[in-house]
Amino acid sequence: MKDHDHGERLGPADRFSASLPASGGWKPGDPVGERQFVTITNGRPFALEGGGSLPEVTVAYETWGELDESGTNAVLVCHALTGDSHAAGDSGPGHPEEGWWDDLIGPGRALDTDRYFVVCNNVLGGCQGTTGPSSIDPGTGRPYGSSFPTVTMRDQVRVQAELGNRLGVKHWSTVIGGSMGGMFALEWALMYPERVRSVIPLATTAAASSLQIAWSAVGRLALVNDPNFNGGEYYEAPDGKGPWMGLAVARQLAQVTYRTGEVFERRFGRELFDPENEFDLWGRFQMESYLDHHGQKLVRRFDANSYLVLNRAMDLHDVGRGRGGIDAALAQMSVPVLTASITSDVLYPPYQQEHLERAIIAGGGDCRRVVIDSPEGHDGFLLEHEKLGVHIAAFLAAAERQGD
Amino acid sequence: MKDHDHGERLGPADRFSASLPASGGWKPGDPVGERQFVTITNGRPFALEGGGSLPEVTVAYETWGELDESGTNAVLVCHALTGDSHAAGDSGPGHPEEGWWDDLIGPGRALDTDRYFVVCNNVLGGCQGTTGPSSIDPGTGRPYGSSFPTVTMRDQVRVQAELGNRLGVKHWSTVIGGSMGGMFALEWALMYPERVRSVIPLATTAAASSLQIAWSAVGRLALVNDPNFNGGEYYEAPDGKGPWMGLAVARQLAQVTYRTGEVFERRFGRELFDPENEFDLWGRFQMESYLDHHGQKLVRRFDANSYLVLNRAMDLHDVGRGRGGIDAALAQMSVPVLTASITSDVLYPPYQQEHLERAIIAGGGDCRRVVIDSPEGHDGFLLEHEKLGVHIAAFLAAAERQGD
Repeated sequence: MKDHDHGERLGPADRFSASLPASGGWKPGDPVGERQFVTITNGRPFALEGGGSLPEVTVAYETWGELDESGTNAVLVCHALTGDSHAAGDSGPGHPEEGWWDDLIGPGRALDTDRYFVVCNNVLGGCQGTTGPSSIDPGTGRPYGSSFPTVTMRDQVRVQAELGNRLGVKHWSTVIGGSMGGMFALEWALMYPERVRSVIPLATTAAASSLQIAWSAVGRLALVNDPNFNGGEYYEAPDGKGPWMGLAVARQLAQVTYRTGEVFERRFGRELFDPENEFDLWGRFQMESYLDHHGQKLVRRFDANSYLVLNRAMDLHDVGRGRGGIDAALAQMSVPVLTASITSDVLYPPYQQEHLERAIIAGGGDCRRVVIDSPEGHDGFLLEHEKLGVHIAAFLAAAERQGD
Repeated sequence: MKDHDHGERLGPADRFSASLPASGGWKPGDPVGERQFVTITNGRPFALEGGGSLPEVTVAYETWGELDESGTNAVLVCHALTGDSHAAGDSGPGHPEEGWWDDLIGPGRALDTDRYFVVCNNVLGGCQGTTGPSSIDPGTGRPYGSSFPTVTMRDQVRVQAELGNRLGVKHWSTVIGGSMGGMFALEWALMYPERVRSVIPLATTAAASSLQIAWSAVGRLALVNDPNFNGGEYYEAPDGKGPWMGLAVARQLAQVTYRTGEVFERRFGRELFDPENEFDLWGRFQMESYLDHHGQKLVRRFDANSYLVLNRAMDLHDVGRGRGGIDAALAQMSVPVLTASITSDVLYPPYQQEHLERAIIAGGGDCRRVVIDSPEGHDGFLLEHEKLGVHIAAFLAAAERQGD
């Protein structure tokens, strides 16, 4: 029986404005903001670890500070899953949000731009200027969409190495990142040990765990089940609709894993967002409104196919592949490593960084692990910049003294 | 560029056989199995806590053992979200799986059917014989679908109370359940203290937490975003398709929260399910195949609208509503309570049962809490039947001695 007393029943209303583009990714013609671009392929196809190749790879990146004459004062900052090259700086045209590590990068900050030439690039497969599924395939003149090949961390790091060449970087003072960015840092130390003085992989893992794969897989299925996903070919949909809700749901799922029940309970408890609809099927708690907000925000600046490709790249992350297994790979690490655990991180739990530390030291390497006592969960690597900054600055200073 | 080397790219293939019904719920004409039915409304509408009413409520239930003459040896077993009345017994026509608590119910078992008259009913809003969204609305002659009203734990418990009347139960020796079933047990103690000798709410909570609401909300959005959901009106879809993938994704999400990373890592690690497609976007790890299996299994026996309605009922669960808050409500508990925490439960963490214990005892009540040391996560309340059985049997024996 229809509940007429409460008037029209709420649905999971159309939560997206019809004025959204099908993909939230950056595309030529959009404001470039602080981005610079370089095409690293020069007409040669870029071969990929999993087979196949890309005819052309363009990289969007940003820099802060100046490269010195020796070409050795550079720091490579690697972004996480939904990050981009805008690691520092204000929001503005081309950059809907302020830099995601703004508090760590700048004059006098942990990554001191008076001393270091800081570089951050949008990763291969991304959607903020670097070649990815929403880019135009030169072979067809249309977006790659579902034909974009699988890329791996190692492919993405090779792109960064080529970017370094173009910028004149002889070796990096450090390669630093959290979460997916930390996967890059680990691969840098194993693929190019002669080109990095140290690496700083934070809140990350030597190889994706079953649990990480599980969350990635469920999010990806929720995304592709969107009525507007259309097998990944939504860029030129006649109705202009993209898989917004599917991408938003995947983001909501991820957002829960990035934080903790403790944080949610303290912030939201059981507070209602729609008190007048308390007993409606689609009445919302504050918790739900928060998740909706995060889903909607990502949809405005991200591409659904990039979300699939990068999640899959993270699932495939395994430093041990082709290197005799994880411990054997970590035992080869020859550059100093600083890692950090967030005590409340349920997605990249402290045992994963303990493993890094143990296996590197067992192999005779140098690994320092700091434990950040924080209730913020995995997002602690973004939020606890003060605590992290102290350790990063000290580690870099020590590495410089050793290098003198 | 298409990765031609690997032939046809895999997609998140059609994982559901076309021979599935749109809804996996039980419907008249299906084998009844061990179900019995009673219509508790006798022509009077059944009023609901949230407003509105149902013109008719039929309850499907099963029983084991015999009710004694005094009508006081009965035990009410309450199922969890996707459970049903088949708490014990073999699989067979009408019951695709064996009883979900078969190891706890039977002659000589913790819920000893030589001594107790054990009853388990499919809950209001469910889909295995009791009135729910897939039932026929007598007002229209068609399935309720999205017009089914929001129900709450208290509505569902009132249905159980009426079922007890019909069965001649004077008072229940205990009301027992885990997870959602534990919510029923708590409400029984508060709504009908004179009709229960004790309650056994396991791995449950006094009120849904923000985190529980978050997981429920994301799963529900994934479900309703399925192209075949059709606003909940999929029962009579011309193509016969239901929101299978959406329901499966919601189940997969829940399944991850029911277990632990430790269990997954031990069982699956990074083992590939499709080794030949290791680098394909849709190549799967064993972890993913496990989740697919669980999603598909639920779709065959569950109804998508019931999934929404029952999840929402759990989100609305709050023993403190209209009783002066959670602690005030728990302080009123006058019957002995046995609760259990599973050490590794990340969905209903031990702090929730600690809260029950503390608030009940602070109010002068009687609450015993046992801690089950188990890596199984929330599903421990189903899997750790041996450890739980010992405590349940001892608690019931003690309660009987007190009652003498």
